[in-house]
Amino acid sequence: MAAYDPGNIFAKMLKGEIPCHKIYEDDDTLAFLDIMPRTEGHALVITKEPAADLFAVSPKGLAKLMAVVQKLSPKIKQAVGADGVLIQQFNGAAAGQTVFHLHVHIVPVKEGVALKPHAGDMADPAELAMTAENIRKVLSA
Amino acid sequence: MAAYDPGNIFAKMLKGEIPCHKIYEDDDTLAFLDIMPRTEGHALVITKEPAADLFAVSPKGLAKLMAVVQKLSPKIKQAVGADGVLIQQFNGAAAGQTVFHLHVHIVPVKEGVALKPHAGDMADPAELAMTAENIRKVLSA
Repeated sequence: MAAYDPGNIFAKMLKGEIPCHKIYEDDDTLAFLDIMPRTEGHALVITKEPAADLFAVSPKGLAKLMAVVQKLSPKIKQAVGADGVLIQQFNGAAAGQTVFHLHVHIVPVKEGVALKPHAGDMADPAELAMTAENIRKVLSA
Repeated sequence: MAAYDPGNIFAKMLKGEIPCHKIYEDDDTLAFLDIMPRTEGHALVITKEPAADLFAVSPKGLAKLMAVVQKLSPKIKQAVGADGVLIQQFNGAAAGQTVFHLHVHIVPVKEGVALKPHAGDMADPAELAMTAENIRKVLSA
């Protein structure tokens, strides 16, 4: 189990110290767009618990996190016109984890469109803002 | 949401019509080794609900499924001496789903060892049996 660093970037988002392209928030979770998206609409859902990874979160916190992943996935898929949804969650640097605050990736996938690399190029903030707005519209419809 | 085909290979495993390298079972879930593993110890956890994907499972069924993923992941990591764990779940053929019964991949990852392709080569059944035995030993320790 990784030690939890309260100064990690997602902890700062939760405290409002760093902005994010928010698409959803409740008492237990926050969801926003990945700034290095593998596809249009690539979102992250994070727990509000100070948990570095899957091993550290409470079972209740994990259940709430996954309920939000389940709720958001079809809405994101619809908002960007995707054909499928890839869910990913990385534990440990060896497995590709780069921020040590538990987060689940929702990656909407279009038929025949290859995924960009994990933790690759930064997206245009204006494009992210527009995608986040489109997703929030579908969520509130 | 994909239609559920009760003749899919995981449904047949649940009915005992097809064998599997079982590592864990309870009232709501079954876990076994992937026969086309991306790494040693690559396991699948499936719900016992007739749910094709993340969109179709009940929130309660999803919570139970993820609780088992959380329980098994560190044990599998320990059994194969991995450094991290990648969790993946595919929804729709476009996203890489090949069996349309909801399943979560637990992929233990070793530092510097590349993953084999998703749905790639079949593993040696004797090796799978030995790995499954090693995981069951850690689980029952």
